[in-house]
Amino acid sequence: MAENRKWRMGMVGGGPGAFIGPVHKMAAELDGRMELVAGAFSQSSEKSRLAGQAFRIDPARAYANYNEMIAAERIRKDAIDFVVIATPNNMHLPVAKAALEAGFPVMSDKRATMNYSEAEELEKIVAKCGLAYGLTHTYAGYALVREARHLCRSDQLGTIRKIAVEYLQGWLSQPIETTGQKQAAWRSDPKFNGPGGCIGDIGVHAFHLLEYVTGLRVTSLNAVLRTVVPGRRLDDDCSAMLRLDNGAEGMLMASQIATGEGNGLRLRVYGEHGSIDWKQEDPNRLRVKWADRPEEIRHAAAGYLGADARAVTRLPGGHPEGYIEAFAVLYREFADALDASRNSKPSPLPPTLPGIEAAVRGMRFIDRGIESSRRKNWLDF
Amino acid sequence: MAENRKWRMGMVGGGPGAFIGPVHKMAAELDGRMELVAGAFSQSSEKSRLAGQAFRIDPARAYANYNEMIAAERIRKDAIDFVVIATPNNMHLPVAKAALEAGFPVMSDKRATMNYSEAEELEKIVAKCGLAYGLTHTYAGYALVREARHLCRSDQLGTIRKIAVEYLQGWLSQPIETTGQKQAAWRSDPKFNGPGGCIGDIGVHAFHLLEYVTGLRVTSLNAVLRTVVPGRRLDDDCSAMLRLDNGAEGMLMASQIATGEGNGLRLRVYGEHGSIDWKQEDPNRLRVKWADRPEEIRHAAAGYLGADARAVTRLPGGHPEGYIEAFAVLYREFADALDASRNSKPSPLPPTLPGIEAAVRGMRFIDRGIESSRRKNWLDF
Amino acid sequence: MAENRKWRMGMVGGGPGAFIGPVHKMAAELDGRMELVAGAFSQSSEKSRLAGQAFRIDPARAYANYNEMIAAERIRKDAIDFVVIATPNNMHLPVAKAALEAGFPVMSDKRATMNYSEAEELEKIVAKCGLAYGLTHTYAGYALVREARHLCRSDQLGTIRKIAVEYLQGWLSQPIETTGQKQAAWRSDPKFNGPGGCIGDIGVHAFHLLEYVTGLRVTSLNAVLRTVVPGRRLDDDCSAMLRLDNGAEGMLMASQIATGEGNGLRLRVYGEHGSIDWKQEDPNRLRVKWADRPEEIRHAAAGYLGADARAVTRLPGGHPEGYIEAFAVLYREFADALDASRNSKPSPLPPTLPGIEAAVRGMRFIDRGIESSRRKNWLDF
Amino acid sequence: MAENRKWRMGMVGGGPGAFIGPVHKMAAELDGRMELVAGAFSQSSEKSRLAGQAFRIDPARAYANYNEMIAAERIRKDAIDFVVIATPNNMHLPVAKAALEAGFPVMSDKRATMNYSEAEELEKIVAKCGLAYGLTHTYAGYALVREARHLCRSDQLGTIRKIAVEYLQGWLSQPIETTGQKQAAWRSDPKFNGPGGCIGDIGVHAFHLLEYVTGLRVTSLNAVLRTVVPGRRLDDDCSAMLRLDNGAEGMLMASQIATGEGNGLRLRVYGEHGSIDWKQEDPNRLRVKWADRPEEIRHAAAGYLGADARAVTRLPGGHPEGYIEAFAVLYREFADALDASRNSKPSPLPPTLPGIEAAVRGMRFIDRGIESSRRKNWLDF
Repeated sequence: MAENRKWRMGMVGGGPGAFIGPVHKMAAELDGRMELVAGAFSQSSEKSRLAGQAFRIDPARAYANYNEMIAAERIRKDAIDFVVIATPNNMHLPVAKAALEAGFPVMSDKRATMNYSEAEELEKIVAKCGLAYGLTHTYAGYALVREARHLCRSDQLGTIRKIAVEYLQGWLSQPIETTGQKQAAWRSDPKFNGPGGCIGDIGVHAFHLLEYVTGLRVTSLNAVLRTVVPGRRLDDDCSAMLRLDNGAEGMLMASQIATGEGNGLRLRVYGEHGSIDWKQEDPNRLRVKWADRPEEIRHAAAGYLGADARAVTRLPGGHPEGYIEAFAVLYREFADALDASRNSKPSPLPPTLPGIEAAVRGMRFIDRGIESSRRKNWLDF
Repeated sequence: MAENRKWRMGMVGGGPGAFIGPVHKMAAELDGRMELVAGAFSQSSEKSRLAGQAFRIDPARAYANYNEMIAAERIRKDAIDFVVIATPNNMHLPVAKAALEAGFPVMSDKRATMNYSEAEELEKIVAKCGLAYGLTHTYAGYALVREARHLCRSDQLGTIRKIAVEYLQGWLSQPIETTGQKQAAWRSDPKFNGPGGCIGDIGVHAFHLLEYVTGLRVTSLNAVLRTVVPGRRLDDDCSAMLRLDNGAEGMLMASQIATGEGNGLRLRVYGEHGSIDWKQEDPNRLRVKWADRPEEIRHAAAGYLGADARAVTRLPGGHPEGYIEAFAVLYREFADALDASRNSKPSPLPPTLPGIEAAVRGMRFIDRGIESSRRKNWLDF
Repeated sequence: MAENRKWRMGMVGGGPGAFIGPVHKMAAELDGRMELVAGAFSQSSEKSRLAGQAFRIDPARAYANYNEMIAAERIRKDAIDFVVIATPNNMHLPVAKAALEAGFPVMSDKRATMNYSEAEELEKIVAKCGLAYGLTHTYAGYALVREARHLCRSDQLGTIRKIAVEYLQGWLSQPIETTGQKQAAWRSDPKFNGPGGCIGDIGVHAFHLLEYVTGLRVTSLNAVLRTVVPGRRLDDDCSAMLRLDNGAEGMLMASQIATGEGNGLRLRVYGEHGSIDWKQEDPNRLRVKWADRPEEIRHAAAGYLGADARAVTRLPGGHPEGYIEAFAVLYREFADALDASRNSKPSPLPPTLPGIEAAVRGMRFIDRGIESSRRKNWLDF
Repeated sequence: MAENRKWRMGMVGGGPGAFIGPVHKMAAELDGRMELVAGAFSQSSEKSRLAGQAFRIDPARAYANYNEMIAAERIRKDAIDFVVIATPNNMHLPVAKAALEAGFPVMSDKRATMNYSEAEELEKIVAKCGLAYGLTHTYAGYALVREARHLCRSDQLGTIRKIAVEYLQGWLSQPIETTGQKQAAWRSDPKFNGPGGCIGDIGVHAFHLLEYVTGLRVTSLNAVLRTVVPGRRLDDDCSAMLRLDNGAEGMLMASQIATGEGNGLRLRVYGEHGSIDWKQEDPNRLRVKWADRPEEIRHAAAGYLGADARAVTRLPGGHPEGYIEAFAVLYREFADALDASRNSKPSPLPPTLPGIEAAVRGMRFIDRGIESSRRKNWLDF
């Protein structure tokens, strides 16, 4: 059964009150190729134990901290195969470094690190150790994002001329970080979050989606970061004009004070012959508009989609897949990388799975955005 | 760890080429409270073995048929706790009967049985054995179906006057059952499917949703069943006018030859003061229209939703949950029933989980629909 | 200038409080080919005078009743060229008869007459006098209804198999006819409205749209008419199953107690290869779904539309045209008929303009619907 | 009848091939209070004559140029009451000046003038002559723009924090100005259009809508104007970041190379407690989102709308009104101003009708946008 066994994951973070830890678990396990078996779920060993119990793992493998987990697991016969990082940002680099140096591939929640210099450090570690490093830019896992990517990269839209990407949320319209809301609290504390509030929490998703889908690279930007809610310690609203390496231009808008919005990530790409429009809150449809023929709605799981999109759905057309399923696509591709690593090392990540390059690009975006806003001017990337 | 362990499931059906078997597994395991450990996945023992391998279960527990599974499992120390039925309809009653009589609770795919008399038999078995029997009317698991149900049952719409429910698919617009499409093949063969093609495959979902949400009961109907595609052996299109027990009337439309449609289940309920409109292909929104104030869109996971809706989401607003998650809600409620059965027997099903009553109602609907269509007239229910 | 002058219209009905009279005027005049110059706007000569003043016509031409108008106008040098009928239903036949027999072409609001026997009488009068008779089934004037018609009639959808047409309003959810609401009052009074409330007011629009777009003819129906609001004298809700002359079947749903709905006319037509979906409240888009390629949204005024659709828009794409513009298309085609009548008599109506045939069909539908509902059974058409 | 007569309009521009001239006529005449009686429709007297014939006016009143029209009309007994300007931009100031100085109120198509200094000149002329000057920022005429305005100005959304306005068209994605397309030709020729292509043609509409609805004023901007289509002489794409006088910030995006877009004007305004979202292509609905209650869709003509919105619809809910009707609202308000001028001079414009202040603001926006783009930097307004 050895070759058929599930890949075993150890998670850092994801303790009581966490949002993204349980999502990592559900996503990783959805396709039946991975299972959570260990974790250092909280800074508090009692909370870690409770989380382990809730996750129904062996109590002996709910560790008090990640160093303990790595030390204990590396000598087990049934050791974990990789480490998932689902902590606040400040722990991303330390955990990734410890895991990779101990020989464990890493799947990390985004933003990759606290700041850009950490990202450069991480890049060197990943290069040196030759292990898989994946970054959960969730939205890259949606089938119709794959279709959009295919349409852009196969030149069906013609030369890309204009891009509009936006990510609008309203949940931070009020200073809820002062009322004990855990998600808001660490995100608005530079010590845990690093510099860049809104730009780092969601702006970076928008930025990644733009580059992921179009294959273009941002070369300069002019950003305005604002802190709208009085007393907040980090930006909660961000706008930027962008230049792309093919001469196209773009607008990026990210906000967490867009009252009434849920999780409004949307990407529009305008080419010479056609354009695409994808919305995360309506993820199973892709609008494609053409200069001279009817607007199209492409539906997930349809037979006419490209191979990339068809590869990542589990259900027939009309049966909605959502956020967890998209997340699970990234884990599926990470499992592919682990499978491949049995035969070759270092084994490359599937090109559709965001990895260290996306990590460094994203941190660069945050860094340049903050600096551009400080200077109130354009800045090369 | 015993009290904390996952409930162990054994599946019948779900072998290579199956659609719904893997969905049962993903759904049951999503919340981490259940795990697939055994199965009789196919009529062919070789295919069952292959499916077991794909599902990564112990090869010894991939059985050649359900009798073998039940016999072997009931004497294991780590025996399965319940049986999932994911076979074509003809096996639903035999498997359910064998499982229940062997002491295993059952979670069954819908339609409950081949025909109405089988449903009556099943009802007696369930009553006698005192074990949990759940029926996966998936759509009952969506958060906003729960909200719709709450709005109807708490009388916020006023007296319900009119209902329109439709379930439109296009995948059987051509005779694909003659080309080896497995899903189409058994569904159009009376031997495996039983009487009632479209009405039994999807009409029954529409019927269930109507009664589930409104709390009303259909008392008579006038149905027209048609076989539109030449050579097909069962109906592929169904329309019906309905009368409800409170005097309201309704229209039900189900079709598998509605070219271009995916999985278009939609329910509209009109009350004296307001109305609701829910579409399965846009499941995270519920439209509520009022006589004298703005139309509303209620979003999944919003704080203003009723407790029933809020209880069944896993993600913050704006993060779409889909078909698998809705399916998993039913398994979560089945797990609740299993948990409860530790302390009391027989333990009742949660009222939100479709069970034997829904099974009998659904089979009655199919039976009366076919007969009404044969007589071309109204028929009491 | 004689050949270039506008066609002069005299209106019967449309006095103070009327809804549809002013719409007839705006629609008729929109394209600059017609002008309102005379009228008998109300049963009260004082109200007729006031309406004439509001319409800014010559006070001498605001008549006390239609007979007076016809008598006075036929001897004027600058006489009206045709008569518009915008009265309650009970006056439709008498006015049409008087006008036609006096040599005036007629543009009538729908429903054509009080009942079917009146429609038969009208048909004879029209045939005998050889003058243009148009019926304002407004929705036939929308560009994308023309496109839908073209798609159906040019067989691009393949054989039509199934039709769903619905017309849902909520404005009669309460007994507002008892509170002085003029529109509701006459519509719920058999003396002014004739038999058939909802079925005659809006059901007939749905029926017409179905036949207009598909080119098929209903051959039998099974209808249920209900009076939902207590004390109301006519039906306010109507459902029907339909059979078409090519073997297709359909569902028709019309209601005026569908709380929260505005003017929800929608037509869906399913063919073997594709289907269409048009909604009056979103009139500038037509959804076209195909078995094996992306869903389309066709937009009004787009270059890829068929000639019929392109002929009836006034504005570039993206500039919404609405109800008045659709109405005006029918008047434009009526003006075409008047233009043509200069050279040949009788001159045929443009085939896209509903006329006496549609009038008779519609009244037949109302008649058969009422009788079917009374018998609770299918009825040939 | 004198007091009841229609206001007589003389149009400059609107000859063969024009788009907006006929719209002015339809809009002005829709409510029956104005009529086109004279015009200088083209630079060519033959074309002007043909246009007059098509418009069915007295041939004697189809003039060869606007000076001739003004000279002839001012001495007629049945002279025009006001002048409509529907020419390319280069004629806006000369015609407005001539008309106003001859005593004729003016309704002008936007952009008000060629450049900002002309706007300042126009402002002085308007102030001096004391006559009504209206500017057809069409979109200000939609009912739900009025509702949005009311919501913003009555502080129901709380302090406005963020604004996103966009106006996306695709019709200039290719260099159609070189192929004889008349609309494209003059718009891309600085001699007829003035400086500022996209920013002046549609950007100015977006800018106006923003200020019109919110009541805020832009105080500085950072714009990027681009000419995407090779060989084009003016910008065809424009993006800008904006600062508002209450501290809010905004993004403005206007493009005529957004392939596949029709006339995509959209305004979103985010306040502390709620937000609004209005789209010109779906003009009869307004989305209102709240922090803590369901999203709303407000429908045109609904009873729950504010008085401003209810004042400008002609049809019951669910009967779409479109671009022409919105345009006609501005003419209706201009007619109100003319009515008022009978009793008092100068009579103020209704506050909801864009006038000279909007004209100057708009020209300032174009001017500052061009200069900001040239400097690649923020610029005070």
